[in-house]
Amino acid sequence: MIPPYNKRVEALRESPTRAINRIVEHMRKRGIDVIMLSAGEPGVPPPKEVRLWLAKALEEESMRLYSYTPSPGFLELREAIAMDIKDLENVDVSPEQIVVVTGGQNAIFSTFSTILSPGDEVILMDPTYFGYLNMLPYFDVKLVPLVAPPERGFQPDVEAVKEVVRRGKTKAIVLVSPDNPTGRVIERGAAKAIADIAVDYGLWVVYDEPYKTLIYEGEHVSMYELAPENTISLYAFSKDPGIPGWRLGYVYGPAEVAKRIALVAEATTYNPPSVAQYLVLTYLKNREVRKRHIEYFKAVYAHRRDVMIEELRKIDGISFHKPQGSMFVLADVKRALQAKGYDVLPCVESLLV
Amino acid sequence: MIPPYNKRVEALRESPTRAINRIVEHMRKRGIDVIMLSAGEPGVPPPKEVRLWLAKALEEESMRLYSYTPSPGFLELREAIAMDIKDLENVDVSPEQIVVVTGGQNAIFSTFSTILSPGDEVILMDPTYFGYLNMLPYFDVKLVPLVAPPERGFQPDVEAVKEVVRRGKTKAIVLVSPDNPTGRVIERGAAKAIADIAVDYGLWVVYDEPYKTLIYEGEHVSMYELAPENTISLYAFSKDPGIPGWRLGYVYGPAEVAKRIALVAEATTYNPPSVAQYLVLTYLKNREVRKRHIEYFKAVYAHRRDVMIEELRKIDGISFHKPQGSMFVLADVKRALQAKGYDVLPCVESLLV
Repeated sequence: MIPPYNKRVEALRESPTRAINRIVEHMRKRGIDVIMLSAGEPGVPPPKEVRLWLAKALEEESMRLYSYTPSPGFLELREAIAMDIKDLENVDVSPEQIVVVTGGQNAIFSTFSTILSPGDEVILMDPTYFGYLNMLPYFDVKLVPLVAPPERGFQPDVEAVKEVVRRGKTKAIVLVSPDNPTGRVIERGAAKAIADIAVDYGLWVVYDEPYKTLIYEGEHVSMYELAPENTISLYAFSKDPGIPGWRLGYVYGPAEVAKRIALVAEATTYNPPSVAQYLVLTYLKNREVRKRHIEYFKAVYAHRRDVMIEELRKIDGISFHKPQGSMFVLADVKRALQAKGYDVLPCVESLLV
Repeated sequence: MIPPYNKRVEALRESPTRAINRIVEHMRKRGIDVIMLSAGEPGVPPPKEVRLWLAKALEEESMRLYSYTPSPGFLELREAIAMDIKDLENVDVSPEQIVVVTGGQNAIFSTFSTILSPGDEVILMDPTYFGYLNMLPYFDVKLVPLVAPPERGFQPDVEAVKEVVRRGKTKAIVLVSPDNPTGRVIERGAAKAIADIAVDYGLWVVYDEPYKTLIYEGEHVSMYELAPENTISLYAFSKDPGIPGWRLGYVYGPAEVAKRIALVAEATTYNPPSVAQYLVLTYLKNREVRKRHIEYFKAVYAHRRDVMIEELRKIDGISFHKPQGSMFVLADVKRALQAKGYDVLPCVESLLV
């Protein structure tokens, strides 16, 4: 007799990126050369100085690099993160408000576990990071996607947000800036309006900012500064300094919510990976290396964006909003495909075979 | 207006190890020298060859070490794990049945998420690994601790298990072998009896075996072999090869449950840390280094155990069961304290100040 499973796990779906990876692999097997453009996979490894520091530390005959750490990350790292936030965004956050977690995914999971209850409504932009879509059903909440129109540069539609919030079921508004996959950086006016809604109605703003050091035009708005009691900020070290596989990130917000998020993070992973904590600590503490590295990878990704845009402009019928940040261009290829005699839907479906 | 939290998070407690760590720190600050004996913190780092391989790889100017990996871990590692299980336990497990996860804690969390529903009863030995106690309430289940008597070497009481199971509410039996903190290695007879109960009543056996290569006397029983459709085995690379902070482990069981556990693991951490995957792959593939390392750390820990036991025997009124595996001695110090005029409870409470 085989024992039954938990029904809630049935709500979980494979991440869309995983599905895309399988499609790409499948096409390659059929001899079709595919360049994978959809995932947020960085192309710049961490600074050499930092990697060599770690290489040296690996020679030591001690448990220093390998031991368990406190669940919210070790204090020195949380202090370095607080300093980094102060330095880059001029915002004061104390180490007690920061929870170091096992990557962006754990930041999202621990945060949603902490704030969402079954039946809550969660507002998301449409389009936005698709990783939310396969995880949120696990929490038994209702997703409310609100179109962020391409013709307005994918800025959130504040009036539409208000209209949903007035129904009184909203628990959280999820915002990504710079956004994946639109490349949109939120404008201060829209951010302020959403912050005000959150404060007025007692909502959480989950502000997901893994690309905050990857902005080509415009500024990164601190949502925390606009609504410190209502904002939970999520960050991952995946893109900067470029260790997506190593799984390290942090969450910050009011100390009380940070404490609860830390308990979920502890329940799910005990502590964030120590080796990644040491690497990032070395990176953040060496301010010169830190600043030089940001300038370097920004130049690399800006160049890639410009090449991409230039090439896309050469194709008739492709329209897109020029990304101001992150590492994506979201292009509408419908008319271009139609001009070549393809229907969009069968075309997409054939990719999914 | 500050938004509310999820009630389920209220069920989470700080891990007892964290609390113990704070006590130790507190006592050290008061100038009291404390040797921390309670945590499963290994003292032997990974083999030098393996660490130097990683140090070398860190010099590369590529994203190889840093990229995202498939959520259940990369295939080559799962193949190496299957080979290792075959080699050490003579059990056939396919890579599709193995999910590499972010450490033992994530193995436990992903497994419990997958199999437990609110109201289920979960049988635990008493005493056993206390990490379960602060996490299980999150799943809204009923814990049924069954005394594993010290006078029987902490072997499970099979009749007591049967009695609970007959009530018809049990979903899972959790067994740790070698056990933390008792050092008990489960006997084949008891393991077989529990496997039979699980099969007859359609229950899961969650078989937690992070110390399976750390046995001084006796043999490691494969629960999976006894009940392949009902067993979920959990392993962590924390003690062997000694990377607790790096967070890597695996789960194996029927392919269908492995697939579901992988979805929870993905939702919580996206993928297990790539750097730890590379280190462990290098370790497991180099069979000579692997075998030499097991012999080495077993000798180190066996010696420590023997010193500990020898010293404990010198103290009047201390009784304990000689551990056959893991890295703990669970000693009853009640009579020894009483002989010195201390009451046990106030003594323990004074440590918790």
